[in-house]
Amino acid sequence: MTISPFQLAIEQAKAARIHDEVPIGAVIMDAASRKIVSSAHNLTESRLDPTAHAEMLAIREACHTLGSPRLHNCDMYVTLEPCPMCAQAISFARIRRLYFGAYDVKGGGVENGPRIFHQATCHHRPEVIGGMEETVCADLLKQFFAEKR
Amino acid sequence: MTISPFQLAIEQAKAARIHDEVPIGAVIMDAASRKIVSSAHNLTESRLDPTAHAEMLAIREACHTLGSPRLHNCDMYVTLEPCPMCAQAISFARIRRLYFGAYDVKGGGVENGPRIFHQATCHHRPEVIGGMEETVCADLLKQFFAEKR
Repeated sequence: MTISPFQLAIEQAKAARIHDEVPIGAVIMDAASRKIVSSAHNLTESRLDPTAHAEMLAIREACHTLGSPRLHNCDMYVTLEPCPMCAQAISFARIRRLYFGAYDVKGGGVENGPRIFHQATCHHRPEVIGGMEETVCADLLKQFFAEKR
Repeated sequence: MTISPFQLAIEQAKAARIHDEVPIGAVIMDAASRKIVSSAHNLTESRLDPTAHAEMLAIREACHTLGSPRLHNCDMYVTLEPCPMCAQAISFARIRRLYFGAYDVKGGGVENGPRIFHQATCHHRPEVIGGMEETVCADLLKQFFAEKR
């Protein structure tokens, strides 16, 4: 049985917990070949890098793998609504379609906050599908933060 | 004669042209010691990485150097108004004060576009001083793009 790219993103989120990182996972898939190009989870604390969100790491890895700073035919699967930083990076990378899990009222930048893709100055807007496996994705985060308290 | 951190950011912007990169430079300085912690210029094309903006590279280098994902006592000097991605990264990194050069009506995210630091969901707002050496900074960009045509 083949694992779906979104399920792989959830597996990445689960793996983040081993590193005591916020459980968020991201996967980039080439839409034509349906090959996984990159996968990553949050590494901000381990790498001492506030930009090391799952989406940023997945974009950088995919660009490196494909030898291009633009990922025209690629889709991203991520367990949480991207923050404004990641949303803008997704636009810069020309991601074709964005699938995300839980909505993030406090920190999201796609359907919440600055709604990056709706800005007049946003030059590339991916198609957006939110709320994938929403409860599973949100529960991973809730459980992580409950254990921190 | 000591070079000012903003002058150093301009020198970084000029250096970007050698790599055929958009001339934008960024410097991070520890505000207490006045020591330069990092300096960088745009490397998106050379590194095939759409996230390799001067500000992102400077933040990552500064965090690595100081061994912390947060730069509480640091100021950033950058030749162009940061884009939304970089503005959000500046907030995440807890940069104390942001000095920038030219305003960027088309792509900026501080005084233009989503105005990241003014969003209700933005948890850390640096002090912002825009328009430093505005003409010099803008002319570097104008000249670069004129030569491209």
